[in-house]
Amino acid sequence: MIRAGVVGATGYAGAELVRILAGHSGVDLTVVTSRQYSGKPFTSVFPSMKGLVDLTCEAFDNESVCARTDVVFMALPHKLPMAFVPGLLKQGKKVVDLSADFRFSNPAAYEAVYQPHTAKDLLATSVYGLCEVFKEKIQQADLIGNPGCYPTSVILPLYPLIKNGFIDPASIIADCKSGVSGAGRSLSLTALYCEVSESFKAYKVGGHRHQPEMNEILSLAAKMPVNITFVPHLLPMSRGMESTIYANLNKDVSHQDVHDCLAAFYSDCPFIRITDNGRPPDTAHVRGTNFCDIGFVLDTRNNRIILMSVIDNLVKGASGQAVQNMNLMMGLDESAGLNAVPFPI
Amino acid sequence: MIRAGVVGATGYAGAELVRILAGHSGVDLTVVTSRQYSGKPFTSVFPSMKGLVDLTCEAFDNESVCARTDVVFMALPHKLPMAFVPGLLKQGKKVVDLSADFRFSNPAAYEAVYQPHTAKDLLATSVYGLCEVFKEKIQQADLIGNPGCYPTSVILPLYPLIKNGFIDPASIIADCKSGVSGAGRSLSLTALYCEVSESFKAYKVGGHRHQPEMNEILSLAAKMPVNITFVPHLLPMSRGMESTIYANLNKDVSHQDVHDCLAAFYSDCPFIRITDNGRPPDTAHVRGTNFCDIGFVLDTRNNRIILMSVIDNLVKGASGQAVQNMNLMMGLDESAGLNAVPFPI
Amino acid sequence: MIRAGVVGATGYAGAELVRILAGHSGVDLTVVTSRQYSGKPFTSVFPSMKGLVDLTCEAFDNESVCARTDVVFMALPHKLPMAFVPGLLKQGKKVVDLSADFRFSNPAAYEAVYQPHTAKDLLATSVYGLCEVFKEKIQQADLIGNPGCYPTSVILPLYPLIKNGFIDPASIIADCKSGVSGAGRSLSLTALYCEVSESFKAYKVGGHRHQPEMNEILSLAAKMPVNITFVPHLLPMSRGMESTIYANLNKDVSHQDVHDCLAAFYSDCPFIRITDNGRPPDTAHVRGTNFCDIGFVLDTRNNRIILMSVIDNLVKGASGQAVQNMNLMMGLDESAGLNAVPFPI
Amino acid sequence: MIRAGVVGATGYAGAELVRILAGHSGVDLTVVTSRQYSGKPFTSVFPSMKGLVDLTCEAFDNESVCARTDVVFMALPHKLPMAFVPGLLKQGKKVVDLSADFRFSNPAAYEAVYQPHTAKDLLATSVYGLCEVFKEKIQQADLIGNPGCYPTSVILPLYPLIKNGFIDPASIIADCKSGVSGAGRSLSLTALYCEVSESFKAYKVGGHRHQPEMNEILSLAAKMPVNITFVPHLLPMSRGMESTIYANLNKDVSHQDVHDCLAAFYSDCPFIRITDNGRPPDTAHVRGTNFCDIGFVLDTRNNRIILMSVIDNLVKGASGQAVQNMNLMMGLDESAGLNAVPFPI
Repeated sequence: MIRAGVVGATGYAGAELVRILAGHSGVDLTVVTSRQYSGKPFTSVFPSMKGLVDLTCEAFDNESVCARTDVVFMALPHKLPMAFVPGLLKQGKKVVDLSADFRFSNPAAYEAVYQPHTAKDLLATSVYGLCEVFKEKIQQADLIGNPGCYPTSVILPLYPLIKNGFIDPASIIADCKSGVSGAGRSLSLTALYCEVSESFKAYKVGGHRHQPEMNEILSLAAKMPVNITFVPHLLPMSRGMESTIYANLNKDVSHQDVHDCLAAFYSDCPFIRITDNGRPPDTAHVRGTNFCDIGFVLDTRNNRIILMSVIDNLVKGASGQAVQNMNLMMGLDESAGLNAVPFPI
Repeated sequence: MIRAGVVGATGYAGAELVRILAGHSGVDLTVVTSRQYSGKPFTSVFPSMKGLVDLTCEAFDNESVCARTDVVFMALPHKLPMAFVPGLLKQGKKVVDLSADFRFSNPAAYEAVYQPHTAKDLLATSVYGLCEVFKEKIQQADLIGNPGCYPTSVILPLYPLIKNGFIDPASIIADCKSGVSGAGRSLSLTALYCEVSESFKAYKVGGHRHQPEMNEILSLAAKMPVNITFVPHLLPMSRGMESTIYANLNKDVSHQDVHDCLAAFYSDCPFIRITDNGRPPDTAHVRGTNFCDIGFVLDTRNNRIILMSVIDNLVKGASGQAVQNMNLMMGLDESAGLNAVPFPI
Repeated sequence: MIRAGVVGATGYAGAELVRILAGHSGVDLTVVTSRQYSGKPFTSVFPSMKGLVDLTCEAFDNESVCARTDVVFMALPHKLPMAFVPGLLKQGKKVVDLSADFRFSNPAAYEAVYQPHTAKDLLATSVYGLCEVFKEKIQQADLIGNPGCYPTSVILPLYPLIKNGFIDPASIIADCKSGVSGAGRSLSLTALYCEVSESFKAYKVGGHRHQPEMNEILSLAAKMPVNITFVPHLLPMSRGMESTIYANLNKDVSHQDVHDCLAAFYSDCPFIRITDNGRPPDTAHVRGTNFCDIGFVLDTRNNRIILMSVIDNLVKGASGQAVQNMNLMMGLDESAGLNAVPFPI
Repeated sequence: MIRAGVVGATGYAGAELVRILAGHSGVDLTVVTSRQYSGKPFTSVFPSMKGLVDLTCEAFDNESVCARTDVVFMALPHKLPMAFVPGLLKQGKKVVDLSADFRFSNPAAYEAVYQPHTAKDLLATSVYGLCEVFKEKIQQADLIGNPGCYPTSVILPLYPLIKNGFIDPASIIADCKSGVSGAGRSLSLTALYCEVSESFKAYKVGGHRHQPEMNEILSLAAKMPVNITFVPHLLPMSRGMESTIYANLNKDVSHQDVHDCLAAFYSDCPFIRITDNGRPPDTAHVRGTNFCDIGFVLDTRNNRIILMSVIDNLVKGASGQAVQNMNLMMGLDESAGLNAVPFPI
């Protein structure tokens, strides 16, 4: 049994990690930390898990955490992981960090949108944990920068098509929509029920920090600098993310070509589902799961492709992918603990 | 492996049965029937389960279903099961019927609110499948009348208190609230998004067919005829049911007495959770699970008790309890297939 | 034109007052105050009203406010109005206070659930602003304690029946459900979208501060002390409140008797609508309006009545009733500014 | 007083027309027709308006309707208006048709996506009722083809920019999101609460019938054939539509240039609001109103503009704009009946 700890267990991503790990037959969840709820039973904060999770929240302490874990999940806001992760690695722990701190290979790209990086040396060895794209590297890694939710939903449908030269990387527009849980459990006016319900709007247009993250990975696929247009929107729902992505087709590409390209690239990937006949995927169909469903339609009159992907922002967009990364790092089955049959509604 | 079939698999309760059975390690789901979608892959109707359920909907045929199943779940509107169940029993199948057809021991009570009963003889041996109350009988049964959602949520908190003479059965008032999925997947104006959203109202006041069902079981507990006041309401949400129940206390009963009574009665019941300190339970905490959470507060100035229970109407209120019944009938662990860790939100 | 000011204009009740007053043809809205947004245009906080409201938020200053108003609405949390209102009255202003500070005639009842009262002398002359019940007094008043949302929804259906001796006041149980906007615009975990959506639960069972307020007024109707059982619940919606109220009928009372009693008592009341044939009222039908719709059903087997009322908690439960009070105080038509045709959905 | 009739008054658009017209001081609403509810009081179908609308639904009869109206609103599915409108015009009635039947000047464009047109001759004189763009023509018209909701939200932000040559018409991509009420009040699986809640998806990608409508009008602005890429999505909310529109900038255009262009074009338009500093507009801010709020951001690195518009699909996207058209046709103030102050939430 692998012993796992969750640092920052009482945010939404942290609690979702607890849910998944508590149901993972290869893992023994031994530590949950929370500054705010230190000393309280985890289930006093999340009563849904009463009877199934029997842990008390504790304050983070490097030695204490290391003594009881083999792998540590960091579910903290960016900046904090930079301070904690080096200590964990020194004790030989494997780490999956859900913040942005270890997603970038280029520190300048990180510092341009976050803040000065205090553990730059680790960026050389940390691996971007997009499992379907970087599986081999992940299997060898000690430190994973778990991808952002928007980048996961945007890169997965695009990567194979860019790599195969099907689309013009300069033409990419990603119109993305996220449920409110992406904002986390901290208090903010914009996350209040009365502000979200019956409301839909774009936000941070031209200034969202997930954009450079996408650009870095898509540039790898294109082997040239890519700078997409990215507009995030806030949906009146808890969980779910949809990305509708537009790009110019580079050459005569048929619907079948695109299907074959995606199907081949993701042939061994248990969590990628290409929809039948390009049917637009629905966030409801991946709710609570680690799936990324992808559909597409060709706008032949305009020589454009319309790609659509859906994920659960808390699962494939955060905690599910984190566990998938752990599975790969620890030599477990990639989908262990992530196989729950989805709800029909 | 137990071979199971779901008759009426494309309604919400049927699809929820498919979800649970597909994830049940002791069950091989072999047959799904649907008149409307006969010939179509089940996942063309419920794409969320693509990759996890590989069955084609078929029309119901007694011989064909019996040849491939050990147990059959009937998820059809009442009246149809009366016609199909005798044939299944004749072939030696165990049957869990989710309709009202086999819930009543008294045919007259059934006929007063439904229609003439065409298989009355079976009512003598069918068992009311409220697992926590009638476990021994269920273990011996061939035919289960799976309880209605409202009765499940109302009887569970009341039964031990009535049996122990803590409350006056003539004083019971049940104010119940249900999510929309209780209305099923058939088309109706009242189930449209625009009619439900930002709407809350009572319905069928004084005339809901679950009332005689509650009365029959509560009368057993009281050993006298009980006729409660029951008002169902429709909530603007998909899944979840809350019942707030009022009754006069019969004698000097303390908070601790009530807690002890409930805790003792349900001591071996994995799906009953008494909340800490009487905290009101939240439907969100049982969403997607087979739990029934119970809380209570004493209104000492008025010598009344306020009982509150929550269930997921599609799980403990329908398909989850149906699988729990099957587990008991087939000698499996009572909670097999029903152990998924609940979502934090 | 009556000059009106709103103190605390950027909470939900305050902003709703601004909405109603800005569309009121007999009123000139001259002042909006907000500590938090002082100096900012009101429409920078509530952009929906851009082009229709052209006022800048200012800090409260007694002299400055008095110089530009005839009537002042206080939309602040309780305790603050006690400090501000005496100064306004001294300047001869009429005041409608939406907090609890001036609702009680008995200071001890207030202090038992709020805090020490620092303007007790005013309680002798302040009037409880339940317009349909205390119209004459309101017309003479200088200071109105605007009723709480729950008390409005509970007292309106009960008052005539208690007064006429139709029901036993000792038997009253009020099971009430409120939309989230009742919690206001301040930040709290329980008001977050992800906590509210797909959730329903009771709260503050046996301890909500609206209960003594109801008791005081219902005792007036009964001419004896009344202590009801009251359980509030939180609905996954923004606006709307439903109360289902149970009571024992005192004597042989027919459906027609109840209808006639309510219809007679509210014959001159433009905002009370008795539903046809007792049909359960729907919160969606009063959304954004000052209506209180009332329905009822007799549970003759148990000799009980089931009363159901719906209001918009922000309108008839707060700001709409406040304007109705102002209309009465200032000699305007009772429904001025409150006549918008409701939305069909 | 202008006498108005609503044909098809019990769909959502029809009922919304009734709401607006019942509150319009220059209009006497005299006729409401409904095949389904003929003979029933309108408020038995929409109880929210009880006490404010006192009309009985009747079957459509040309003579009877004409005898009691000056202007007739057609709120029927396309195809039916073609049959009814000629008769109304013959009697000298003004007609605003909310279907697609009279939106196209080119019958072939209509027939390519709807069905054979049986009143083609009227297309020569019918006017496309996008009020802010075609005001003069509308003022002279007898028959208005009221614009579709998507075209309204897409054309309004684009028209001035295309006309001024700011953007490349070949590069336009419109990513649009609509609330469920756009699907109307008829029964369909996709409009059920349980299917919509916590769901978001694209639909009819590349095949929505509003696309040729947009193309026809945008081609007018561009003076060349325009064929945009258009993807509609379904939002889990009742009312509201957001369009995020991408286009390549044709030349060096600054943020101020775009603002000035839009502000100048819409200087006399009471229902167009340009947001401050390009802030993304929010559907919640126009809910229940006839406003179209427009925001925009320049993606200078990609030389693209991102335009965002929001409307209430039932008001500016249907019934509100229909009344605005009537106001213009009848010589009333353009905003008469459409001035309600919006809700803060």
